[in-house]
Order: sequence, then C-alpha cells, then structure tokens
Amino acid sequence: MITINENFMKLKAGYLFPEISRRVAAYQKENPQVRIIRLGIGDVTLPLPAAVIEAFHKAVAEMAEAKTFKGYGPEQGYDFLIQAVIENDFRLRGVELKANEVFISDGSKCDTGNIQEIFGLENTIAVTDPVYPVYVDTNVMAGRTGPQNSQGCYEGIVYLPCTPANQFTPEPPREPVDLIYLCYPNNPTGAVATKEALGRWVEYARANKAIILFDAAYEAFITDAAIPHSIYEIPGAKEVAIEFRSYSKTAGFTGTRCAYAVVPQELHAYTRAGEKVAVNPIWHRRQTTKFNGVSYPVQRATEAAYSAAGKRQVRALVDYYMENARIIRTSMEQFGYCVYGGVNAPYIWVKTPNGTNSWEYFDMLLKEAHVVSTPGAGFGPAGEGFLRLSAFGQKENVLEAMDRIGKLA
Amino acid sequence: MITINENFMKLKAGYLFPEISRRVAAYQKENPQVRIIRLGIGDVTLPLPAAVIEAFHKAVAEMAEAKTFKGYGPEQGYDFLIQAVIENDFRLRGVELKANEVFISDGSKCDTGNIQEIFGLENTIAVTDPVYPVYVDTNVMAGRTGPQNSQGCYEGIVYLPCTPANQFTPEPPREPVDLIYLCYPNNPTGAVATKEALGRWVEYARANKAIILFDAAYEAFITDAAIPHSIYEIPGAKEVAIEFRSYSKTAGFTGTRCAYAVVPQELHAYTRAGEKVAVNPIWHRRQTTKFNGVSYPVQRATEAAYSAAGKRQVRALVDYYMENARIIRTSMEQFGYCVYGGVNAPYIWVKTPNGTNSWEYFDMLLKEAHVVSTPGAGFGPAGEGFLRLSAFGQKENVLEAMDRIGKLA
Repeated sequence: MITINENFMKLKAGYLFPEISRRVAAYQKENPQVRIIRLGIGDVTLPLPAAVIEAFHKAVAEMAEAKTFKGYGPEQGYDFLIQAVIENDFRLRGVELKANEVFISDGSKCDTGNIQEIFGLENTIAVTDPVYPVYVDTNVMAGRTGPQNSQGCYEGIVYLPCTPANQFTPEPPREPVDLIYLCYPNNPTGAVATKEALGRWVEYARANKAIILFDAAYEAFITDAAIPHSIYEIPGAKEVAIEFRSYSKTAGFTGTRCAYAVVPQELHAYTRAGEKVAVNPIWHRRQTTKFNGVSYPVQRATEAAYSAAGKRQVRALVDYYMENARIIRTSMEQFGYCVYGGVNAPYIWVKTPNGTNSWEYFDMLLKEAHVVSTPGAGFGPAGEGFLRLSAFGQKENVLEAMDRIGKLA
Repeated sequence: MITINENFMKLKAGYLFPEISRRVAAYQKENPQVRIIRLGIGDVTLPLPAAVIEAFHKAVAEMAEAKTFKGYGPEQGYDFLIQAVIENDFRLRGVELKANEVFISDGSKCDTGNIQEIFGLENTIAVTDPVYPVYVDTNVMAGRTGPQNSQGCYEGIVYLPCTPANQFTPEPPREPVDLIYLCYPNNPTGAVATKEALGRWVEYARANKAIILFDAAYEAFITDAAIPHSIYEIPGAKEVAIEFRSYSKTAGFTGTRCAYAVVPQELHAYTRAGEKVAVNPIWHRRQTTKFNGVSYPVQRATEAAYSAAGKRQVRALVDYYMENARIIRTSMEQFGYCVYGGVNAPYIWVKTPNGTNSWEYFDMLLKEAHVVSTPGAGFGPAGEGFLRLSAFGQKENVLEAMDRIGKLA
C-alpha cells in the first residue's frame, strides 16, 4: 500500500501567498469595478534592464544555430556566470570564493527549500519569527517538526521572536540549535543585521557546531555603508554558513528565474558519530542528481546584469523601488502608523492600530482602500499585529495607495 | 551539532554522467589532437525549432516593456501552456485532463527526482534494471534504502531485470511493491511497452494499491502506431499513475529547460492508518512551496512547439535523430554486434562482445575509436555487458563513429 508523506498533513491552510491571491480574487470577482493596488506579494513591476534584454536575445539567437546551440550545461551553472558572481558580488567586497563554491539555480525559493535535504532529520531548526514561510514549511514536509500548536508554532522548531524591543534582530538562543535560518535585509520586517550582530551568530555557530543558512536575497537594497552584504564579510563565516542570493528583486528576475547558493569548501557538518563531513560535495551531489541547470539564455541574461551598463540599470531599478519605500514609510508615519524597515530593504513593516489582528486589517485595507498588503501573522506568530507593505509597485500606484490609506483615517 | 544526511554516503562513486565526463576529459587532455565523437549522454545537438526561437524572442521582448512584463507566474505553469499540453499531448490521443492536473516544470530530472518526497519513507520502491540513475539515487538520498551490496543493488529496492529473454520489458513482480518507476520508450534499452504490458502494470497497481511513476520523456520517438504514448491510454491508469513528459529530446530543450508532470485528481495514496489521501493537492503544495515556476520566455517558447509550424519542425528533429538511430542500429548489426532498441526510441542498446564488461568496452571505444558511449553497468547491475549508444548526434558524426567502430573489427 502506497503511503503518503504524512508530514504534509501537519501544514495548516494554504501557503501564505496563494491564500492572499484567493482572497483578492474573490473580492475582485464580487467587485469587478474596483481597481485593486497590490503592495502585498514582493513581486517586481519594472521591466528587465536593457542590457539584460540584449544579452537574452543574443543567447536565444545562439540557440537557433547548430554551431552556437547549447544542450545540457553544467548542473551547477556556466563558468561565465560563476566568475561574474565571484568578481562582482564578492571580490569587490573583499571576499574570495572558488568556482566550485557557487551553485547557480532557478531561484532562492528552490535553494532555501532544498538545502535542508542534505542535513540529518534529527537536527534542531531555529528561525526568526516572523519568517519567510518556505524555511519552516520545507522542514515540516521533511519531518523535522511535530504538529502545529494553537499559537501557530510547529513543535521542535526554535522560534526567535523579532520585536520592536530587539529591533527585529534577535540574539542567538541560549539553547544549542543546529540549523539557523537568517535573512538580512529581512523579509518581512525590513530589518538589517550589523557586522557585530552577524558576528555573534557566527561565533554561536562555531561554538555550537551549527550551520547558518543566510538568505541575502535583498542585499542590493542596503543603503547604509556599514551594513554587511554577505555573511562572509564576517571572519570565520565560511566554516559555518551557506549564503543564498537572488536576481529576482534586484534585476527584476521574478518571472525570469535565476539565483545562486554559496557553499564554501571550509563548511563541515558531522555524522551522528561525530565525524566531520564536507558539505560542498554533498550539495554538489544533490544538485547534479536532482537538477539540470538554469536555462542557458537566462544565464547569459543574468551575466549581463554585471556589465557596466547592466549594473547602472540594476542600480536604477533598486533606486526606483527604494523611493517607493521612502514614500510608503513617510506616508504611513504621517498617517500615525508605527512603521519599521524600508530604509535598507524594500519592505515596510507596519503595526496594525488598536490591536487589530493582521488578517482583519488585511481584509479592511482590501475592502476599504482596495490595497493588498501581506498579513504579518502569515509569517509566524510574532508577525501577528503587523502588516508587510512592499515597495515593488509602480510609483503612481504607490502614491495612490498611500492617498487611499490616508483617507481612511 | 549539525548532522549530515548520512544517506548520501551510501551513494557509490559519482553520478554516471559526471564520471563519463571525467574519463573523457582526462583522455582528451592526454590526447589533445584526437577528435572525440559523443554518442554517450543523451544530449541533443540540433538547434531549437524556428517557431520556438520566434516565440522565445517575442517573449523576451515582452519582458522589456512595463506593460507586458511578467513577474512571478503561477508555480504550476501558465494556463496557455497547460492548455496546449492538454489539447495536443492528450486530447488528440483520447485522454482528457483538467488544467490543475498538469504541472509545468524545468525538467523531468527534477520532477522524477522530487516526486518521491510526497510519499512515505516506508514505501517499497521497484525499478526496472538497467534504470535511469535518478530514480534510484533520489530514493537512496531520502533514506528509502539500505546500503549498496556487492552487485551494485541497494537493499530494500526491488530490481526487475530487463533482459533479451523478456524483451527488456519485465512483468510486475510477485511480491507487493508500493512505488514503481517505469520508463517507456525506455532509457537506456530503447524498449517499448505494448498496451497489454502496460495494462498488466495498471492492473497490478490497482490490485496492490501501488502507484506507477511513468516517465514518457521519449514518447515522441515512437514509430509503431500500436504503442501507447501515455499511460493514461490504459483504462483505470489515472487512479494509479503519475506521468512525466519532457521537451528536452523532442524540441531540443536540454539547455532551455521545460517539462511537465501529470498528477490526476483520481490518484490516491494512503495514510499508514489506511485512510485515502488525494495526491494532486499534496504535489501542488510541494510545488508551490519549493518551486517558483519556469521562466516566462521559456514557457512561451515551449508553447510554440505546439503551433502548426512548431509541430512540423519538432517532427523533423525527431525524424533526423531516428535516421541516426537507424544508421547506428543497422551498422552495429552489420559489424556483428547484437543490438536492441533504436526503432521506437533514440537509444541503441548494444551487447558488448565476448563478455567484456561495460566500463572496459567504454574505455576501449573511447581509446580505439574515440567514440563516447554510455556503459550499461552505470544504469544498474543488469546493464552489465551492454553499452548505450545515443542517436542525438549530428548525422556526419554518427556516420564517422560507425566508420571508426567498423574498422575495429
């Protein structure tokens, strides 16, 4: 008798964003005349940079000729893209990486979802709370947790609450944990971690033989020069951290799909008997067995984001969204909301007024202002009482959304 | 202490194709003047069809304008592609599917590798032997097997030997198994399954509450009108089978990346307590949580393979490779080899002469004829004593390879 993986049945309700889509679609269906503005899901709206488009076309044209056609590429990505990553994202910030430490993929959702496969089921997971649901849900599916309790927490996961009191950057826990998901600049709170704060995590991981999974998908939005862009800017981090990067939010790749993971050669895990095992060859084996690489034209398009023109154009995209972030942050403050983030991140984290809960306030904003937000509670129990607003809209929509919300007061 | 998933350490040596690449690269390095012809890995060599290229460019151009730009798409694929799949690959063969039963992905390697995640770890796996290594290795990684024994078999997996005696299409086993991987037309043997043979598998699965994972990546190469292209042509199969399709070999997408899986609504698995659970929503949950959809331009390019021009061009590609298959098959027969396959499949399965083992014969062909084959033993113990030759080369290379092999005799 074929049995299902019963861990899936521990997952409550739908994944957050499909649930939002469902509510928005239902409301739109009942109110077809209403123009809904989406500041919910973190999806970009500006077209791909011109340099990226040009390289994309050129690579498609290569696929049309037998002489330049590309079949299977290396599962871990083409060297031209890996070298561009190493040079631009790391060497320029003083971090040296080897080519076989970079694994090109089709998305950080896949990478952060798949990475747990290479670790033992007995590991204790720690997440900040609120948290990107993929980190938690993929561990639930794998069987590293018990059921969800009434607070919405899964048994066996260590949740580290992010609150105004700790500036949404919790300290390492007192108890030992094995696998720690950190995301800075943070989705959803927009908080950043200083070098000192990350240093304490690296120190903790080294002392506890833990591994940090560092999601840096939003590093391009950092405006404060003192904030690290990579965890490898912290000495000793290569021995305890895997880093994830994405082109989704920086180069506008949410529909184009490219990202990468860095798994340093110095990184080790252990057998249950305590024997050291290098993690890099295990991830290499996982990727070569279960993945066939990113579409060649997409990899060429991505490479172009690192050209001189590409970098300028990507910078312009980031600046555009950060101007939206500024508008949202200052408008919401002006309307009397208590807001966080939006300075080094494209997300603004808004306290719902008068103790209203997240989904109620989400529904209210949808129905009264026709604005889609993301309920903080969807990111975990400590997100209750907050909303996430995303800066990835068109500026005129952001302005109109702020106008509508301003009129609610 | 962070522990590694120790199941990875049960995997022996490298994944087959990286090991071949390693040997070929080493030989080429020592003999830089030699022109090596690759009939090994099943990688296509002809450019993408013109209709595909045209649609690909058009979609890239859409990504350059805010009005037509696409961000996140549905994780399970765009409806335009799903509808084209349903109409062309199934309705035209008398099979009706619903839109939410088709899941567009970036490759059958990913799909056939990931699908096991949604089933319990206690299931018994059956594979034909020889077999595409991904089916086995992903179950080893997940922990559904014991270690590998001296014959190269993993404890706990039921291997069904494919031999000349059973025409490489083994019957269902006597013992009950839960999850059965079938691939027809078969990689690597080139064998096909008749309606009657597949019917016996469907009957077995229904009687034993088993699920069949049917890999139909090579269905376009079927030339015999009586051979089913989809397992759903067998009555009752929707209740017991998941089907995988790929554009890699048909439309030349090995470097472009698109495929799909069909998970019918009628398909059920069970809790350990025996309660029925629909599989479709579980796979939907897995995909929406761990995957972000295929690149939009790639989905548009794929759609074009179903246009009138696209279909003609894909047909021409398939015919070209099947002419290569005919050349290899008849030449090898003429040289006195015992050969199988190559009639309804792009693979020719060659018995190594005089009891030479697969890797020895692989090395001999590489060194004496400078032709890359795939050692049958790399696909499983019953592949020992065979080589796979692939028809995906350029015709002039295939002719020269045959000429070189002919001279060895």
